[in-house]
Amino acid sequence: MVGAMNDASLTDAIARMFRGDALDERVEQTLEDALREVYDTDRVSSEASAEALLERFGETAIPDGPGDIADYYRYLASNVVPHGINVASPRFIGHMTAGLPSFAAPIVKLLTVLNQNVVKMETSKVFTFHERQTIAMLHRLVYARDEAFYEEHAQNSESTLGMLVSGGTLGNIASLWCARNRALPAAETQGLGAALASRSARRAVVVAPALVHYSVLKAVGILGLGQNGLLRVPVDVRGHTDLDALRSTLVRCRDEGDVVVAVLGIAGATETGSVDRLDGIADVAAEHGVHFHVDAAWGGPVLFSRRHRDLLRGIERADSVTIDAHKQLYLPVGLGLALFREPDLCRAIELEADYIIRRGSWDLGRRALEGSRPGTSLVLHAGLHILGRRGYELLVDEGVRKIRWMADAIRARPELELLAEPTLNILVYRYLPKALRERAGSAPGTLSDADHERIDQVNRTIQERQRDAAQGFISRTTLRSTRYGSDRPIVCLRSVVANPLTTERDIAAVLDEQLEIASALEGEPR
Amino acid sequence: MVGAMNDASLTDAIARMFRGDALDERVEQTLEDALREVYDTDRVSSEASAEALLERFGETAIPDGPGDIADYYRYLASNVVPHGINVASPRFIGHMTAGLPSFAAPIVKLLTVLNQNVVKMETSKVFTFHERQTIAMLHRLVYARDEAFYEEHAQNSESTLGMLVSGGTLGNIASLWCARNRALPAAETQGLGAALASRSARRAVVVAPALVHYSVLKAVGILGLGQNGLLRVPVDVRGHTDLDALRSTLVRCRDEGDVVVAVLGIAGATETGSVDRLDGIADVAAEHGVHFHVDAAWGGPVLFSRRHRDLLRGIERADSVTIDAHKQLYLPVGLGLALFREPDLCRAIELEADYIIRRGSWDLGRRALEGSRPGTSLVLHAGLHILGRRGYELLVDEGVRKIRWMADAIRARPELELLAEPTLNILVYRYLPKALRERAGSAPGTLSDADHERIDQVNRTIQERQRDAAQGFISRTTLRSTRYGSDRPIVCLRSVVANPLTTERDIAAVLDEQLEIASALEGEPR
Repeated sequence: MVGAMNDASLTDAIARMFRGDALDERVEQTLEDALREVYDTDRVSSEASAEALLERFGETAIPDGPGDIADYYRYLASNVVPHGINVASPRFIGHMTAGLPSFAAPIVKLLTVLNQNVVKMETSKVFTFHERQTIAMLHRLVYARDEAFYEEHAQNSESTLGMLVSGGTLGNIASLWCARNRALPAAETQGLGAALASRSARRAVVVAPALVHYSVLKAVGILGLGQNGLLRVPVDVRGHTDLDALRSTLVRCRDEGDVVVAVLGIAGATETGSVDRLDGIADVAAEHGVHFHVDAAWGGPVLFSRRHRDLLRGIERADSVTIDAHKQLYLPVGLGLALFREPDLCRAIELEADYIIRRGSWDLGRRALEGSRPGTSLVLHAGLHILGRRGYELLVDEGVRKIRWMADAIRARPELELLAEPTLNILVYRYLPKALRERAGSAPGTLSDADHERIDQVNRTIQERQRDAAQGFISRTTLRSTRYGSDRPIVCLRSVVANPLTTERDIAAVLDEQLEIASALEGEPR
Repeated sequence: MVGAMNDASLTDAIARMFRGDALDERVEQTLEDALREVYDTDRVSSEASAEALLERFGETAIPDGPGDIADYYRYLASNVVPHGINVASPRFIGHMTAGLPSFAAPIVKLLTVLNQNVVKMETSKVFTFHERQTIAMLHRLVYARDEAFYEEHAQNSESTLGMLVSGGTLGNIASLWCARNRALPAAETQGLGAALASRSARRAVVVAPALVHYSVLKAVGILGLGQNGLLRVPVDVRGHTDLDALRSTLVRCRDEGDVVVAVLGIAGATETGSVDRLDGIADVAAEHGVHFHVDAAWGGPVLFSRRHRDLLRGIERADSVTIDAHKQLYLPVGLGLALFREPDLCRAIELEADYIIRRGSWDLGRRALEGSRPGTSLVLHAGLHILGRRGYELLVDEGVRKIRWMADAIRARPELELLAEPTLNILVYRYLPKALRERAGSAPGTLSDADHERIDQVNRTIQERQRDAAQGFISRTTLRSTRYGSDRPIVCLRSVVANPLTTERDIAAVLDEQLEIASALEGEPR
């Protein structure tokens, strides 16, 4: 801390911070050095436990300040940076967050200095057109409309091809907000109660696959439909929505007078990576004249892969699509999109305000879920130009190739059970204790509840011990539809292979560490 | 572009990007140089018109790539950076976005490289505790509970003192989401229609001052209350909510069986900077047992000022408070907070999901509006430690001092009319054409509709010409409650003085440029 200051020297210290004189390259180097230490190892984190770290973050008084920048950077370098998660470690293969290509950080730094606010042209100017262009590029990836369509709509202030949002959760909320208002046009002005009453409808619902991401549960809650208004349709062991069940759900809704706001399909389920047969769901949605939304937060970029893009056939028939740029577009956390097939869908949520949003203006704040927003299209545009179609294709193809290698590696280890064939680059499996291994293989129906609970517990322990050792990382989840039936939740280990620097050797090392942990566990008295 | 590549060299090029070998300091320097060019002048933007820029952003095909990073940075440096808005110009005094202290950008760059995701401990570890600590510091600024309270709740996984969100819009939505579920506990599960029906209520409403920010209109729309469910209470010429009108609105709601979700107060109205008498609104909310929310997106940091904090007396009685860190905490766009007086308010929106959010965990995703989020508490914590209480106090006090100087400067120029005495650092005024000046001053009631339309038009033109010349900037808005009555909307010029580098000379220059534009206009044939 700089210590008590008189008014004049405080004024001067603040002015120096805003002019930039207070920061030299040597000070910045503190942070660069801290990063280098993290990335010099493949460890996933420090050895400090959560409980130990917690103790260090109890102080809640705001200091008088001003503080010295160099001192503060040293604090970050020693107390914070080493104790985060090294998501760029090639052995961190358990969540959807990974390391980034190196071109991203300098662009984000540039953006931070520029501090544009795209809610309005007057605080962003060229960034408004840049964002519209970037959204149109992604729209084209998904919908592939013709050149004339993009010439007409990309920069037309009355058209909205999509919305940049802080992530897929807001992408799903924004899409379903539009869908709700499309199904019940009175909802936005008169409220949901009045809108339902005027249609003599009992309730409004969203119909989604059982594997739907929890953000959709959040969406129906926020939008007033209620969590009970999320009707879940069963999926088969491959994670595909049961189309007959979907049809009969929609018929039941019609018969009971429920307003169906949207039917959902999933392109890349969070738990298993499975991809719905989108064409089939699109058919059903069309039969019933219902808004079709695809949550492609994870799987959207598979469209770059000539080898695998056919998996997403039918996505171009979706009325709205969520894609996360911070997932398989390998860009910083905090960047998602909702894309809209028709440029006028967003009219359902348009707003104006005298001082900020005027009719006919290009201001992006006119049709948006958020208000003030940074010009993050810059980093998305950079990804599309620097990695490009071929770069993203390679990332997708390599992820699939490696996960298949991992599936083989699991099959080759009798201690492990593959719970589903992978579709994209996500894999679910579990460890089977020695005593139950044979029965699980040959007569899964003979496993008792106690047996299953024992297996679940072993897998929980393996996952936690590996995580705490921080040499490698796999996540865990609970599956509800496996070869053990749909009424038997199964705790499983879940791998996401997204880091292009992850090698087969890394994958094998992570698996083998789990076997070592399991072997130690089995040797332990119980 | 690098040109067509075979698979091996493509693989290598991608790996280099992810290892960081593809980027050297010389390449990064391209972006630094581009910034220097922007900041070497006080201009607000380039001379390029919006229409001219638009033409350059029509290409929507995604290139095959991969592209060269240095080429791409040069593209940004020449085609994008110069044509944004220099929000750090001391003569950009028209919006709530300004330049930042220099310590922010290197921290954001660090965060980008670390790419933490605070939705879950497993992708953020220490960042979870860091965020909780930072939120508790802001909670303490607003609510000033005792040390024991913060010891109990700051790091308690069952307590939620606040939520970091991408901005004030989400802060207001999140707060009103909690309030809706508190007023109608069945809404989250059974939906708003059923929740209202079970209470035999006609509708659910939010009662807010007429100056309420448009994000609240968005909130009532999204939450299913409907825009008609936002009941606006008149304000006086100082922008204070009419407490008698507020009381009678609440009585009418009770008599008509409307469920009141929340009563709002404003601390720093977007248009005028006025601050409600929060204590008075808190009294009324308490009388009716209604959730009290304060939108302090702009004004919250005034609590740092010993001289002015009394303006916000009563804010500590609010059930929820929105504050934007990217406004008067001078941090990058994309960072707001909702704060909650009681640590259990957020239970109303809690969610769990097997693979991501487990009961009893510290995971921040359990009670949040967004899903994946970056570790932006780092930059907020930095502001609180580097600028500190005294730094923020100085920024607040200087803004108020300069806006009062500006009010005097306007009074000293007979061509200009001050439309309200400033409360914080926002000011509204307008230009009066020579022919109407005297009557506007002595007999405002004699101005006809045509006179008013003429004044409005002159002010629109002044604002647009100054903006397009890009040597200085003032925004404009429409006021509905002035000395001309509450049924006569008045177009006005609006200044926000937030940049500590803005001097009295800058303010005078911006005003004088407007007078020059006006004088040229008056000389023009009409």
